Amino acid sequence: MADFNSVGLQFVQYYYNQFQVNRAELTNLFTDQSMLSFEGEHFRGTQQIIQKFQSLGMQKISHQIVTHDVQPSSTPGGIIIFVTGLLKMDEDAPMKFTQVFHLNQTPSGSYYVHNTVFRLNLG
Amino acid sequence: MADFNSVGLQFVQYYYNQFQVNRAELTNLFTDQSMLSFEGEHFRGTQQIIQKFQSLGMQKISHQIVTHDVQPSSTPGGIIIFVTGLLKMDEDAPMKFTQVFHLNQTPSGSYYVHNTVFRLNLG
Repeated sequence: MADFNSVGLQFVQYYYNQFQVNRAELTNLFTDQSMLSFEGEHFRGTQQIIQKFQSLGMQKISHQIVTHDVQPSSTPGGIIIFVTGLLKMDEDAPMKFTQVFHLNQTPSGSYYVHNTVFRLNLG
Repeated sequence: MADFNSVGLQFVQYYYNQFQVNRAELTNLFTDQSMLSFEGEHFRGTQQIIQKFQSLGMQKISHQIVTHDVQPSSTPGGIIIFVTGLLKMDEDAPMKFTQVFHLNQTPSGSYYVHNTVFRLNLG
């Protein structure tokens, strides 16, 4: 089994960096089976998910990761990654967020996001 | 496929109610494959997980659920549940928390927790 902790950390760094520099490039991380829940809205498949990301209105976004926890899931090769952090959009004050990813492997061994849920911790 | 949203909601209500009234009863929700990450500490199997719950020092605990998101996972019958809420221990001020569960089905069709990660949102 691959070292799931290393995969988890690399994924987190890649994902949030790409989100900051070029959200459209995240296409490669999703498939038509992928699911996104974003602040209670639900999206399925690469196209819906990337459209949602592109529709977010901010010009600048940066994520600061505070914690990340990684576990192997019950899907062979699957990895669950749980992230807490701070999100800064444009000139707004930073907001706390939490996000979970369930990565799965393609037949060729690369990883894609099967499930992800994002929530701001406002309430 | 079972209605994963109903299963998710029922699970959340059951889990946090049992946590409040009798944490030892949660034994039924775990197996020897279960994994818990709790504030960065990692536990595996029913015994380690329940011991951790029992070692928590508070007399009273109550959870107020603010959001819950549910998705089917890639494991047949599997469900991912993502919860944000407020946790109150004894007479302390409420604290925000986030928790994810990956439920799987046993051969007999009941659900158990394969993965769970718990974090207070302090940082």
